[in-house]
Amino acid sequence: MSQTLRDNLKRLLAPRHLAFVGGRSMARALKRCAEGGFAGPMWLVNPQHAELDGVPCVASIEQLPCGPDAVFVATNRELTLTCVGALAAKGAGGAICYASGFAETGAQGQALQQQLLQAAGDMALLGPNCYGLLDYLHSAALWPVAHGGQPVERGVAVLTQSGNFAYNLSMSDRSLPVAYMASVGNQAQLGIAELMDVLLDEPRVTAIGLHLEGLKNVPGFARAAHKALEKGIPIIALKTGVSQIGAELALSHTSSLSGSDALYDALFQRLGVIRVSGPVSFVETLKAASCGQLPAGPHLMALACSGGDAGLIADYAERNGLQLPKLDAGQCAELAEVLPGYANLVNPLDFTTAIWGDAQALQTMLDSALRTEADSAMLVLDYPAEFTGERKECDLLLELFCAALQRHGKRGFVTSAFPELLPASARERLHAHGIPALQGVEDGLAAWGRIVAYQQRRSALLALGESALVPLCPAALDGRHVLLDEWQSKQALRGFGLSIPDGVLSTPEQALSAAAAVGYPLVLKAVSAQLPHKTEAGAVSLNLKDPEALGAALRLMRTRIAEHAPGVAFDRVLLEPMAAPPLAELIVGIKRENDFALALVIGAGGVLVELLKDSRSLLLPTTEGAIRQALLSLRSAALLQGFRGRPTADLEALVAAIGAVADYACEHAGQLLELDVNPLLVGAQGTVAVDALIRLGQA
Amino acid sequence: MSQTLRDNLKRLLAPRHLAFVGGRSMARALKRCAEGGFAGPMWLVNPQHAELDGVPCVASIEQLPCGPDAVFVATNRELTLTCVGALAAKGAGGAICYASGFAETGAQGQALQQQLLQAAGDMALLGPNCYGLLDYLHSAALWPVAHGGQPVERGVAVLTQSGNFAYNLSMSDRSLPVAYMASVGNQAQLGIAELMDVLLDEPRVTAIGLHLEGLKNVPGFARAAHKALEKGIPIIALKTGVSQIGAELALSHTSSLSGSDALYDALFQRLGVIRVSGPVSFVETLKAASCGQLPAGPHLMALACSGGDAGLIADYAERNGLQLPKLDAGQCAELAEVLPGYANLVNPLDFTTAIWGDAQALQTMLDSALRTEADSAMLVLDYPAEFTGERKECDLLLELFCAALQRHGKRGFVTSAFPELLPASARERLHAHGIPALQGVEDGLAAWGRIVAYQQRRSALLALGESALVPLCPAALDGRHVLLDEWQSKQALRGFGLSIPDGVLSTPEQALSAAAAVGYPLVLKAVSAQLPHKTEAGAVSLNLKDPEALGAALRLMRTRIAEHAPGVAFDRVLLEPMAAPPLAELIVGIKRENDFALALVIGAGGVLVELLKDSRSLLLPTTEGAIRQALLSLRSAALLQGFRGRPTADLEALVAAIGAVADYACEHAGQLLELDVNPLLVGAQGTVAVDALIRLGQA
Repeated sequence: MSQTLRDNLKRLLAPRHLAFVGGRSMARALKRCAEGGFAGPMWLVNPQHAELDGVPCVASIEQLPCGPDAVFVATNRELTLTCVGALAAKGAGGAICYASGFAETGAQGQALQQQLLQAAGDMALLGPNCYGLLDYLHSAALWPVAHGGQPVERGVAVLTQSGNFAYNLSMSDRSLPVAYMASVGNQAQLGIAELMDVLLDEPRVTAIGLHLEGLKNVPGFARAAHKALEKGIPIIALKTGVSQIGAELALSHTSSLSGSDALYDALFQRLGVIRVSGPVSFVETLKAASCGQLPAGPHLMALACSGGDAGLIADYAERNGLQLPKLDAGQCAELAEVLPGYANLVNPLDFTTAIWGDAQALQTMLDSALRTEADSAMLVLDYPAEFTGERKECDLLLELFCAALQRHGKRGFVTSAFPELLPASARERLHAHGIPALQGVEDGLAAWGRIVAYQQRRSALLALGESALVPLCPAALDGRHVLLDEWQSKQALRGFGLSIPDGVLSTPEQALSAAAAVGYPLVLKAVSAQLPHKTEAGAVSLNLKDPEALGAALRLMRTRIAEHAPGVAFDRVLLEPMAAPPLAELIVGIKRENDFALALVIGAGGVLVELLKDSRSLLLPTTEGAIRQALLSLRSAALLQGFRGRPTADLEALVAAIGAVADYACEHAGQLLELDVNPLLVGAQGTVAVDALIRLGQA
Repeated sequence: MSQTLRDNLKRLLAPRHLAFVGGRSMARALKRCAEGGFAGPMWLVNPQHAELDGVPCVASIEQLPCGPDAVFVATNRELTLTCVGALAAKGAGGAICYASGFAETGAQGQALQQQLLQAAGDMALLGPNCYGLLDYLHSAALWPVAHGGQPVERGVAVLTQSGNFAYNLSMSDRSLPVAYMASVGNQAQLGIAELMDVLLDEPRVTAIGLHLEGLKNVPGFARAAHKALEKGIPIIALKTGVSQIGAELALSHTSSLSGSDALYDALFQRLGVIRVSGPVSFVETLKAASCGQLPAGPHLMALACSGGDAGLIADYAERNGLQLPKLDAGQCAELAEVLPGYANLVNPLDFTTAIWGDAQALQTMLDSALRTEADSAMLVLDYPAEFTGERKECDLLLELFCAALQRHGKRGFVTSAFPELLPASARERLHAHGIPALQGVEDGLAAWGRIVAYQQRRSALLALGESALVPLCPAALDGRHVLLDEWQSKQALRGFGLSIPDGVLSTPEQALSAAAAVGYPLVLKAVSAQLPHKTEAGAVSLNLKDPEALGAALRLMRTRIAEHAPGVAFDRVLLEPMAAPPLAELIVGIKRENDFALALVIGAGGVLVELLKDSRSLLLPTTEGAIRQALLSLRSAALLQGFRGRPTADLEALVAAIGAVADYACEHAGQLLELDVNPLLVGAQGTVAVDALIRLGQA
């Protein structure tokens, strides 16, 4: 992003003046901004009318008094091109293009989108095929239709590929404080990555929410997400396309690119991006982060006025990695003074309805409960319907809880068993105190747990160094490729430090004499790029104890290959010492996803590969620390750590061996199509790659 | 439950007349019933006042004109006893006891609760320590405070151990059609099981929701749940106490009993009870079942007006086992006629906003989409805020969708991306059509998936026969117990058909001669009830190839045991032939939970036990079919099914072997404290139990 473009984008995100290009709907959009309290000058551009709905029109962009900071262009596709050109010439800050019919419609639209991009030059361009931008910090609604939400001092930024999602979110009744909401459409110029980068410079943005089908610019996204991680601004992502059908949809919609979902997990994990599964967890997690005061740790003091709620809290706390420290004797003694005899003095605390509405008793209870080492406290509070006239007792408790949190210097939140029973009035009171109002005890504790986990992982992730490395983004190659045989593959990897068996390459004829140098028992393998699946072809013979066994194996192998793979020359054999039984077998591979990333896949090998489906993916480049962490997070990691009294595996050597594969892959990222080390045998001293296969494409 | 009690409970659940015993709050409760439209006579019983809040008082229960069908007793603890006695004498149908201070408060309260129970006799008694009963079929609110909800023709029955949960649920804004809601309190007489049993005879009850901390009467619950399974009435359970702290809370609250959570899963699975994790999934799943017309299969045609929603649907459908059949050529051709060119003609179908508000186009679209083999169809529809004035287009689409479902004879539901954007007015329209309004696309598809899975499992569960067997409910034993040694344990199990190695018991002195009969290689084990952990004590010696090896092993064993377990006599040894390497190792055990159940635990053994944590529990008695299903649902089941070209395991023999353990356990349920067969070796022909241990208590 050029500095000029960057500056123009900042104008678009903090506009002094607005312009709307289009008809009656734009007149209404302008009026909504006026009603919404936008103070600066606003112009409506329309050549056919002197005024629309009482709004005077400027006849052309040229006749505007200056280049507006932010312009909403609601004309048809062809006119949009002209307008964008004119606005760029006029020195506008940014234009939002509503029109569709560009890249999302195929080749011709793609070409038009290119022209649009050129027309914009260094002027910021959002869209085309987007709903635009809702800016609640400056009351600027660059938006074609009605919207909900209200001005805020500070709040979250939401970027979405679905205009409809943005529209519905703006209409949602959850009191999420939103600073910005942008529908990014086709991302012709400004994409998720560019917007994140600039939004992270706005101190009033407390968290960023992303609704994604796919990422167009993985390296740019990674740079921005790392910036967010350094600043401690949580990124919450709702990424669709987990399922096969979902992934296909993502490809077809908004012309998104989309790597396989597992690699998104790897990308998000590396960068501390919090992934959520739906609209509700998206909003509630953003709320938990929106106050900007994140919990320091997992310890929580939980309060409810019923045993039923306490039971739910206990289960959800455990499920979400939150800890409920026990009450100490002092707290119990104090609480016993004020609570009825049948009250159960534990955390989560059911303080019962016996003291309901009794300010003094409630305050004593709160002061005892909050005199705790826990960093945060929560309260479950369900408001009854208005008609009961019993909401004032709830308001009383809510205010006492907020005051107590402040008195005791604790973070915290309020939630309700049923999401809808924490009404807007209560949510607004809480948010005014900087305390998140999380709707639904199950979603609320999950959201809090995610933010706590983010806080705990953040420094570790930064220390790991991986987040600072920009992922490789390999381009597609044409069809041609070459397969290295086992010998070539092993030698290539040995060059990067992978240890392989100390074998010799020979002809079948010289094999017996060559074997002397290797020693028995040994392994005999036929070497040929035409035999990727050696075992099936009878081209592997294990544990040969003496020359007789070797001779027999050679004869058998010649006939088996002749049968199995006629035409494949049996002219080279590899002789290797038989490896000792390992502590564990791993599979290490490289997966290429064009235009997304190159992934290092580490998995349990041998029998476990099918039983456990136990593997981890790391995007390249990565670090030794990340490799070690991935290894230790395997379900079969126990095998490496002195399983059942066996010795512990040589973890340093294992990490180095996997690092060697990673280094080879990074070095050859341009051509590497496929790489497999299977098995990598792990012992108490060192590792050895018993087989390897590499496929390279031609750039 | 006696027939008289049963009849009285039916009076309580369909009351012709009501009485309230207490003060001003009861006068208000009576008036709420009048306002709510209860038609029959109602009396307020109060000795001190002639009238309260304008409601005339009857001076005593004796002076009532007849025994009322349903009475709410809101007096203090002591008076409650007297009133219940008087009501029983008067021939009342049922009494609800609001007062607390009974079993939940300890021994003295426990005694009072016994007196209360006796006072009630065959009169139905709900509580004590409960909020009572909301009966929306007869507009009878036997309830101490205000409540939400409205009369229904048919709906779900909700039973909860938390009065507060019931109160909040009645206030929730989700349009759940509720026929009955009962807060069961201490369940002195009427418990979850008894209420379920009788509610299942009411044809207007379409599903039953349970909010549980624990079950007091597992056999009764199982009988009622089986009755529900036979009738096809889904039971949806929100059971707390999953976590350790949660389980402790359940024990202390409402004096609930509570087996370990894993056994609840086993109980629910056996009976087809749908378990949910929170208040939202509880209500939404009940809604999905409440219309009483359950989906016939997992195939779903999904409709949305945005790509964002379509992406969410695709992911949630897969996650919840729902299938989205592809559109056929004919459907695509028809849809292409009416939808814009950029529309993506797949299922889930994003029909775009291009045809928004166009009744003709929408109807054509619906008719093409619903001409499908899918049994059900869904629509995602988010209503914008009232002020936009754009809700009528939503209402139009909603009505068209309902009509189309009917025209095409499909089941279906409507949901919204954001739960709160499906307003009450829309929900009521839908429920009037018998179409569930499920709030939130993520929760909605999960709820639908649960009901679909219930429908699919139901007949299979009934065929399995397990649901009809009443679980054993073993009573607690005093501390004394006896440990059977390996020989005794194996002989005991052999008596029930478990095959064990063909070994001989001998003294160390006779071992060498005894060995001749067994043959080499063999296994030597010291036999003593004082050596439960033989391996650690050096009391096992494997794979002895000849007499010399056996002699050496005997000498070593004597010294090792002398060191390791001084005082333990080395006087008996077991000689067994060395078993051949198996296809798989299993652990089969019995877990006793007093007052809950006796569970058969089947798990992967050997190395996998730590790596996979792979086990299934079945409550006893069970069936061979259930044992087979449990085996095949193990994560390591692949090992039994011709894993990596090995032979397949002898499943029949394995099921029979596990059945033998189950039979032994059922036969000795009274005393069996602990049973372990570890390992049970599984081969291509037959199985063999290599070690076994049984602990019996004295009744």
